[in-house]
Amino acid sequence: MIKDAYTLTATEALTAMASGRLTSVELTKSCLARIEETDGAIEAWAFLDPEAALAQAAECDRIRKAGMPIGSLHGIPVGLKDIIDTAKMPTQRGTPIFAGRQTEHVARLVEHLREAGAVIMGKTVTTELAFVHANETRNPHNPEHSPGGSSSGSAAAVAAHHVPLAIGTQTNGSVIRPASFCGTFGFKPTRGVISRKGLLQTSVSLDQVGCFGRTLADVALLTDAISGYDQRDPVSFARPRPDMSAGAMADAPVTPDLALFDLPFNDRLSDDAREGLDAVIDILGDQVTRLPAADTLSNLVAVQARIHEYEICQHQAEVFDTHWDQISDTLKPVIERGRQISLEEYEDALAVKASAEAFFADFFVEFDAIIAPSAAGEAPVFGNGTGDPIFCTLWTLAGLPCVSLPLLVGENDLPIGVQLIGPVEKDDRLLRTARWLQTRLAQASE
Amino acid sequence: MIKDAYTLTATEALTAMASGRLTSVELTKSCLARIEETDGAIEAWAFLDPEAALAQAAECDRIRKAGMPIGSLHGIPVGLKDIIDTAKMPTQRGTPIFAGRQTEHVARLVEHLREAGAVIMGKTVTTELAFVHANETRNPHNPEHSPGGSSSGSAAAVAAHHVPLAIGTQTNGSVIRPASFCGTFGFKPTRGVISRKGLLQTSVSLDQVGCFGRTLADVALLTDAISGYDQRDPVSFARPRPDMSAGAMADAPVTPDLALFDLPFNDRLSDDAREGLDAVIDILGDQVTRLPAADTLSNLVAVQARIHEYEICQHQAEVFDTHWDQISDTLKPVIERGRQISLEEYEDALAVKASAEAFFADFFVEFDAIIAPSAAGEAPVFGNGTGDPIFCTLWTLAGLPCVSLPLLVGENDLPIGVQLIGPVEKDDRLLRTARWLQTRLAQASE
Repeated sequence: MIKDAYTLTATEALTAMASGRLTSVELTKSCLARIEETDGAIEAWAFLDPEAALAQAAECDRIRKAGMPIGSLHGIPVGLKDIIDTAKMPTQRGTPIFAGRQTEHVARLVEHLREAGAVIMGKTVTTELAFVHANETRNPHNPEHSPGGSSSGSAAAVAAHHVPLAIGTQTNGSVIRPASFCGTFGFKPTRGVISRKGLLQTSVSLDQVGCFGRTLADVALLTDAISGYDQRDPVSFARPRPDMSAGAMADAPVTPDLALFDLPFNDRLSDDAREGLDAVIDILGDQVTRLPAADTLSNLVAVQARIHEYEICQHQAEVFDTHWDQISDTLKPVIERGRQISLEEYEDALAVKASAEAFFADFFVEFDAIIAPSAAGEAPVFGNGTGDPIFCTLWTLAGLPCVSLPLLVGENDLPIGVQLIGPVEKDDRLLRTARWLQTRLAQASE
Repeated sequence: MIKDAYTLTATEALTAMASGRLTSVELTKSCLARIEETDGAIEAWAFLDPEAALAQAAECDRIRKAGMPIGSLHGIPVGLKDIIDTAKMPTQRGTPIFAGRQTEHVARLVEHLREAGAVIMGKTVTTELAFVHANETRNPHNPEHSPGGSSSGSAAAVAAHHVPLAIGTQTNGSVIRPASFCGTFGFKPTRGVISRKGLLQTSVSLDQVGCFGRTLADVALLTDAISGYDQRDPVSFARPRPDMSAGAMADAPVTPDLALFDLPFNDRLSDDAREGLDAVIDILGDQVTRLPAADTLSNLVAVQARIHEYEICQHQAEVFDTHWDQISDTLKPVIERGRQISLEEYEDALAVKASAEAFFADFFVEFDAIIAPSAAGEAPVFGNGTGDPIFCTLWTLAGLPCVSLPLLVGENDLPIGVQLIGPVEKDDRLLRTARWLQTRLAQASE
């Protein structure tokens, strides 16, 4: 038995289980003890049933011992954002409106997790309806700070070593930003790689699934396990998916070329975030090309907001109409604004989105990836919202794969991520570039 | 460009495409030309749209050339039994009742094929409602003979080199038997490995999906591509699947032990089939243990029939009620018999089925596989039905994985298969044993 198994990455735990040095029950118990010990101050979990998790783990161990087939996540505990339907657990979506809500069916990605042999550990706290209003979760690095959102609990749970892996979603910056604030890896693959069937819909055009882990290999492993074509998701595509794990383990065949945009909102960066990113870019030298923000990009933040706000008012019209008094004062004005958006304004926004996608389709011919901040700086103080998502907005809007690497530390000793963004459906190449970046910086600090 | 690319196995074609010596368009054109040339005498295809197939192939080639992700069946044409829903093609189920039937959704396994990069070539002829009444397809080895059924067109199309791979279903002997008659490999994995969502339901307890190919590696490859947990299929299981390709390529760690049952219906074997199987068993010597048929097994043929007939009358009650005049005279008496089965008789049959499953769960502790005939002999003459499925009934009833290997030739120069049956969810071990059998026999004939 391995001491403090909760500290293992998923990849390490899989190796230990394959060699017989660890069982899934031992790992799950260790994670549950860690949650018991630390979650009082963090509150990452919206629902946790230790007995049910241990029963799944025992079944994984039984399968392994019996010589039956084992999956790519066999026996690994995974946390799920509380907007992902799981038949045997409530899915309460961070709002009293859905308190105790229980579905008969599981999300498509949960089918994939079961097939991969994962232990569904429980549901992690989401902001209210995966949007602006924070819930109870605190940042594991300092409970006086926010973990970010909307995938607050998923990021916090991975950072706090409650689970090696967790799943979140991003409509604007809800995976990359909390990953940055909590010091984990966050990976949002190309829009449509992972099915959203069985997830709360806030924006059919923008909602995207992403993964949290403590290494690049781990987020790649989880993404591979839950990827797949699903005709019931309108953005899911009927083509092969990138092999994320192969990408995360590959060496770059040539030194990657990165682009850095001089974006109009770069002045929102805190000094420590700017200095940290500049230091990274200095190390990379000629591999980074600074570019003025293309005209195409300047208006995209407003376009994202228009689509997001218009669509959530459409998708959740009945919820907003019938439960207005249970909606937070943070969300109410957003809904009111969304309701004012005309169909024409919405369609104009979709057209701009399409032009941004066309821009990026050409852009990556010259560059392997864009390098950008993951967030405006360290995590905000708890109670002051979940942080500014603006450094994620453009890429999410265009459906590009993004990864946040926990490379920097801010002035309050809180983590700050660095983001890489790649071309659509070449997520494997993006992860390869991220691996190169990690190695390059590690060499520089030797 | 490779001459006569239609003769390649899927594995060979994938290698050729990876090396740039072949494109999917070239392969698909070659297969289409082969169909054009030979299908007049065979009639394996219920629906074929050459332009649509070539468009898919061109898209596969575009993806490959663009350096985008490629799938495990990238660019390989696959035929689908005409009871598998495909949105862009009719699914007519071998009966005028469903002439021109077109669905909006595809079967779950078609989602997997798209994700694997396969070219959906078209729909292959099924017997009427995948049951007893033969349709137009002839045996490619001799058009005066039946190809078997119910997956008549899938077996014939693979045997005739129309496509390297095809998918069928088996409720009794509808994959293994036509594979035997047509001289292809046929593999029906463990019940529940492949989702049946989007397939005609004839028996929720017995219907199972299977694959046709011209090598063991090919049927394993196809099975891996379409396997997966699906909560909408009541027999699909929420556990990892065996790695079929790994099994089909593995060497047996010890020489396998095979069991041969002295079944009460062995007298239905034709002389040439019996002699062929005996010759195989002679070569294997001590590796084969002859066993008297256990009491548990004696009644199972009637039990399978009772469940099958009862369930199809339940599932298709409306079709039978409203389209009685369009049902064949072969099927009518079966339906009439099924309607007479009481709920109690049906439930008794399910209980016997459960006891058979329990028997086989223990049985394979001592044996790697059962060796058995795939069919009673060579394919029957066309017009005399699709052949006796009795040598498949027990294993299908118990949901065991079965593979037919085209090892024998009968007195009319028609192929005869040899069947291996393994324990549930250890399909990889069964395929490993099948590989061993192939190698062992090849060595013996040297």
